[in-house]
Amino acid sequence: METLENKSSKKSSSHEGYVLVTGGAGYIGSHTVLELLICGYNVVVVDNLSNACEESLIRVQTLAGRPLKFYHANILDEQTLIPIFEKYNIWAVLHFAALKAVGESTKIPLDYYWNNVTGSLNLFRVMERFGAYNIVFSSSATVYGQPDIIPVNEKCSLGPVTNPYGKTKLFIEEAIRDMCAANNKWNAILLRYFNPTGAHPSGVIGENPRGIPNNLMPYVSQVVQGRFPFVKIFGGDYDTVDGTGVRDYIHVCDLATGHVAALRKLKTKPGCVAYNLGTGVGYSVLEIIKAMSRACGKEIPYQITKRRPGDIAVVTADARLANAELGWYPKYGLDQMCQDLWRWIDSNPLGYPESSNEAKQILQQMSA
Amino acid sequence: METLENKSSKKSSSHEGYVLVTGGAGYIGSHTVLELLICGYNVVVVDNLSNACEESLIRVQTLAGRPLKFYHANILDEQTLIPIFEKYNIWAVLHFAALKAVGESTKIPLDYYWNNVTGSLNLFRVMERFGAYNIVFSSSATVYGQPDIIPVNEKCSLGPVTNPYGKTKLFIEEAIRDMCAANNKWNAILLRYFNPTGAHPSGVIGENPRGIPNNLMPYVSQVVQGRFPFVKIFGGDYDTVDGTGVRDYIHVCDLATGHVAALRKLKTKPGCVAYNLGTGVGYSVLEIIKAMSRACGKEIPYQITKRRPGDIAVVTADARLANAELGWYPKYGLDQMCQDLWRWIDSNPLGYPESSNEAKQILQQMSA
Repeated sequence: METLENKSSKKSSSHEGYVLVTGGAGYIGSHTVLELLICGYNVVVVDNLSNACEESLIRVQTLAGRPLKFYHANILDEQTLIPIFEKYNIWAVLHFAALKAVGESTKIPLDYYWNNVTGSLNLFRVMERFGAYNIVFSSSATVYGQPDIIPVNEKCSLGPVTNPYGKTKLFIEEAIRDMCAANNKWNAILLRYFNPTGAHPSGVIGENPRGIPNNLMPYVSQVVQGRFPFVKIFGGDYDTVDGTGVRDYIHVCDLATGHVAALRKLKTKPGCVAYNLGTGVGYSVLEIIKAMSRACGKEIPYQITKRRPGDIAVVTADARLANAELGWYPKYGLDQMCQDLWRWIDSNPLGYPESSNEAKQILQQMSA
Repeated sequence: METLENKSSKKSSSHEGYVLVTGGAGYIGSHTVLELLICGYNVVVVDNLSNACEESLIRVQTLAGRPLKFYHANILDEQTLIPIFEKYNIWAVLHFAALKAVGESTKIPLDYYWNNVTGSLNLFRVMERFGAYNIVFSSSATVYGQPDIIPVNEKCSLGPVTNPYGKTKLFIEEAIRDMCAANNKWNAILLRYFNPTGAHPSGVIGENPRGIPNNLMPYVSQVVQGRFPFVKIFGGDYDTVDGTGVRDYIHVCDLATGHVAALRKLKTKPGCVAYNLGTGVGYSVLEIIKAMSRACGKEIPYQITKRRPGDIAVVTADARLANAELGWYPKYGLDQMCQDLWRWIDSNPLGYPESSNEAKQILQQMSA
């Protein structure tokens, strides 16, 4: 029988050079790093751990049965990025690192512009300096603003975006598009995520809760855990199946395979291309609550209140371009998302533990 | 009779604290610094001299008969900005510093995003740190993209903007709007310039030519000077007075008084407000060429070629908001713009001279 080690050592030889993953210790980043390791890529993670922890990467390494390189560093700091690019032959960057809380972004917008926009521009400058001209950028469906048509496709007009977080995503997309137009050495895949949820089916890695959740699924989870008394639903009178808002939820492991598909695409030198990553299937808030209720076997109380300004009835993805050009198809449906999410939460009710000294030592070895 | 010195020393006492002017040695910056000094403001200029020279500031000081402070520094460098904020009690910033060549911006977009966007964000962070919450930002009519209506007013929708230079202006506007929305200590005036031209009536300061001009007026000037054989007119079949494109030209000295009016407005804590700075009067390319021909007494050859993609027939400003709320009215018409421009060019055919050691010494004293 093939051991993980044999399997990995065979696979690691199938890819030359390294993939740099910024924000690789975070929610989507960690799931993608796992998928990269499984697919035999050599991975260097850079994360400032501002909204992530070392433990996720230690678990990823264990799950993959293959090592990764880790640097506790900030993409804003050119002087720490340069030695990493000097040490490793980095041919592509998956750029997840960003502040991502919509509500917070309206309160401290300058921090969002600085971290996300300046951080990205700094990264791009270092990439250019080292001739690393391939990037996969974590964009968001939010760049469409109020979409022209539903399901929204990549030809729909972009913006106006109303919150600073979303603007940072749009501005970085624009900068990347302009860089690619100016210099055909650059290749970029802009992945516009819809609503990521779920966790790895092992229940070993998932989204680390921090503060009051911004998104529905983490909020529902915390109601299940008794941290909030009920789910507050904004609007019950939309023109949808049950009056509540409909969104396109996508399993984080499907996002992870989308990134690997994007890396393969970069090898074909595609210039700058944007892809929606969604399932194309919309679920209402009530459907989400019911599915989560089934997954955890508990009643989930909710209250319907008035609409939030700016919210629209339905947002779903037309992901046919990613299907066709990346050969990527999401595999997981709503029940699996909820079951996997619940497995993670039930096994890790407080999220990842504080990193032990042992864990930190393991990580120090990772960058040795 | 009142000497300049008496006059200035009287006036300087009328304003407490300093106004920091980034890019103050440049074309619009230098004319504004002159106006600020004449109005009695205490001025600190920061300029990296990448597209400006010390000589402009020396001449401004002489014209004003009052001293200014100058630092050869880059707004991207926090460590040089901080001591300036520590030394001077800066209550407001006029932020001109930016790369500004549309064509160049499509070739080196990352430099544009880095200098303009990161530079501005860095400046804003330092301002916040020192409690300097008042800013006048040099924006541009380009933020309107293809305007909804002509004359364009400040309620018209913004973007999409097609070149990186214009995007940097729009993105910085967005960041400023969000900063003001998040923290009511911030006050910002966004000045959307139409087509600045002309020079100070003395002929002593003006726009320093550098490379192939991006804009019509400098191009026309260089044809007059014999550097190019003729003016190339893009499109002679627009629905305008003579078939050529119509734009709103504004005398740089009118822009300068607009900035002083904006500074006064900041004292009323207006939050974030955008104002068009234009005359509201449009002139066609042929009208410009004829006026310039009258001013310099020479024939100016031209050739009409096909339209450029993206260009529209007419863009003029509705500047009634600036008239009403800033009490600002442009004083100069087309003939004066051309006469002043010609006086500057005729007296300084090669622009400012290389700074002499003496000039550099004068400048060193400015920051002592």
